[in-house]
Amino acid sequence: MGEAFNPSSVAFPAALPPEQARGEESDALTALARLVHEDLQACNQTIVQRMQSPVELIPRLAAHIVAAGGKRLRPLLTIACARLCGYPDKAEHRGDGLRHVRLAAAVEFIHTATLLHDDVVDESKLRRGLASANAVFGNQASVLVGDFLFARAFELMVEDGSLTVLQILARAAATIAEGEVLQLMTQNDLTTSEERYLNVISGKTAALFAAACEVGAVVAGESAEAQAALRGLGFHLGIAFQLTDDALDYVADQQRLGKTVGDDFREGKVTLPVLIAYEAGSAEERRFWQRTIAESDQREEDLARALGLMEKHGAIAATLARARDYAAKAKAGLALFREGRLREALADAIDYAVNRSR
Amino acid sequence: MGEAFNPSSVAFPAALPPEQARGEESDALTALARLVHEDLQACNQTIVQRMQSPVELIPRLAAHIVAAGGKRLRPLLTIACARLCGYPDKAEHRGDGLRHVRLAAAVEFIHTATLLHDDVVDESKLRRGLASANAVFGNQASVLVGDFLFARAFELMVEDGSLTVLQILARAAATIAEGEVLQLMTQNDLTTSEERYLNVISGKTAALFAAACEVGAVVAGESAEAQAALRGLGFHLGIAFQLTDDALDYVADQQRLGKTVGDDFREGKVTLPVLIAYEAGSAEERRFWQRTIAESDQREEDLARALGLMEKHGAIAATLARARDYAAKAKAGLALFREGRLREALADAIDYAVNRSR
Repeated sequence: MGEAFNPSSVAFPAALPPEQARGEESDALTALARLVHEDLQACNQTIVQRMQSPVELIPRLAAHIVAAGGKRLRPLLTIACARLCGYPDKAEHRGDGLRHVRLAAAVEFIHTATLLHDDVVDESKLRRGLASANAVFGNQASVLVGDFLFARAFELMVEDGSLTVLQILARAAATIAEGEVLQLMTQNDLTTSEERYLNVISGKTAALFAAACEVGAVVAGESAEAQAALRGLGFHLGIAFQLTDDALDYVADQQRLGKTVGDDFREGKVTLPVLIAYEAGSAEERRFWQRTIAESDQREEDLARALGLMEKHGAIAATLARARDYAAKAKAGLALFREGRLREALADAIDYAVNRSR
Repeated sequence: MGEAFNPSSVAFPAALPPEQARGEESDALTALARLVHEDLQACNQTIVQRMQSPVELIPRLAAHIVAAGGKRLRPLLTIACARLCGYPDKAEHRGDGLRHVRLAAAVEFIHTATLLHDDVVDESKLRRGLASANAVFGNQASVLVGDFLFARAFELMVEDGSLTVLQILARAAATIAEGEVLQLMTQNDLTTSEERYLNVISGKTAALFAAACEVGAVVAGESAEAQAALRGLGFHLGIAFQLTDDALDYVADQQRLGKTVGDDFREGKVTLPVLIAYEAGSAEERRFWQRTIAESDQREEDLARALGLMEKHGAIAATLARARDYAAKAKAGLALFREGRLREALADAIDYAVNRSR
């Protein structure tokens, strides 16, 4: 913790140049990232530059979570959607042609701020297989650096100068917080309806996906119809992505997902797999869920039983089937846009989001 | 906690109509608030309207901290500065004439969000003499509702539509977070220089005072010189206000300040009174400060000893003298503006900020 922060030491998995990426697991997300590789590199540079502060704990803590990597999915969506809409190649696109890059960085800052606050709220010790920022730097610093990154996101938007973009992302930020509070209220509540659960993930996950995509269309000066199509794509993809995460929490192993199996279970998080298994369960099974989830009274063998009940009632398969339905809706949003490598890569990335194993 | 939220039950001390305020302690802040009473009422209405959400815990928690009252100093400054600049009476002031009201609400939302996060960071149990939001609703909800109010502040600014205002307040929000992180890093550190301490309070307190005042000049379409003058006024007032708070923490009693004496001492917060007493202290006295502040090893009789040492070295008087210097600088910023009741009331309010006993 005593070392000076060195921005060049921050690694960005999703933005590796093709030669460095060789030998890595090749997937549709990586393929999409390669198509917009230079934009992503520029975005990562913007992120590193703009998380600087004379208060040295800020870049140090921010680097910890930024360097941890993750899929960098949201800025990738902003960049890919802008490119899909032809930005910045058309004559009417004034400026430096880097609006999508700056706004992708703003989107990632909002996401990173919410991750920092989430880990404090969930008391998480791990994030993507590494110690979480709150575990290393404490809850206090995580809350405050989250606030800093959130403010920085708005500074980047102000520099961009579009009130439409500001409106989209300010609204998204409020909606994320609403989703998180709703999640807090439904936590441990097995009577949560599927509709209410969808409201939670619409807020906490899909709102930012939707905004990230919509912003791409806005910088390209696309029609309201195209903006709405990409907004819808992002929204449905966000739901699909979160449902897949919720399912994988009960199947992935620690090495692959970067977190232990059953984290949601241990936290008493009511996700769709649990709701499906509870709904279909016998009276005795429901008492099991009551004790473990509603009353947070868990013993060592309970996770295995939970996995067994999910298997019995096909809860994981049903959750993934729902995810694939949303992915199909997301892909339908692409019909409006010109065919080509980028559109194909986006469609593949959407498929990957629901077929991944981590 | 189970009751439905009723917005009309939220009380706003600073905006009491004159007849209801009768019998209250009359001070210069109340006098200033009376001069812009209708604007403050409108601002309070905006606050109540805009803290609504279908997620009912949000307005409930927000009402808890908003209703707790406080001086509502920052929105008062935005409104008073706008009025001082003649807003909205001049012909060139287009729109509904309520820009200062909306932006005052945005300023208060940013302030409220930082209070919610501060109380989590400081693990405070009391705020203005009442149970703090985190004590009642938990840290998790406080973090998330803070995020919500912060996002709502930006939504209000987007509605206003001025990129200049957005820039000022986004920058202020980032600076507040920097100041708070710096405070976290200097906490318990008796070698903190007075300059570094001033950097902390410039960020955590003065940045928002400065922005609140500057925004008033911006909505009135005032010259860059007038904007800078009011920004400076707010900045110096913010420093003066915080220094006074830091001094009062060692003198006020619980009933009057709404918090117990010596909160900062118990939290090991290095404020100017401590730094002055430490600097002037004997080797033995310094060992006392080392144990109680740096090592957080406190016994029941230590606060009395700390108060005694401050008295011995005139630390409170010296801190208040510094505060009065800054208040004088703040008042100098008024010279540019037309004389009248409002200018006089602002000058009196600045004096009051450093001469108050709570």
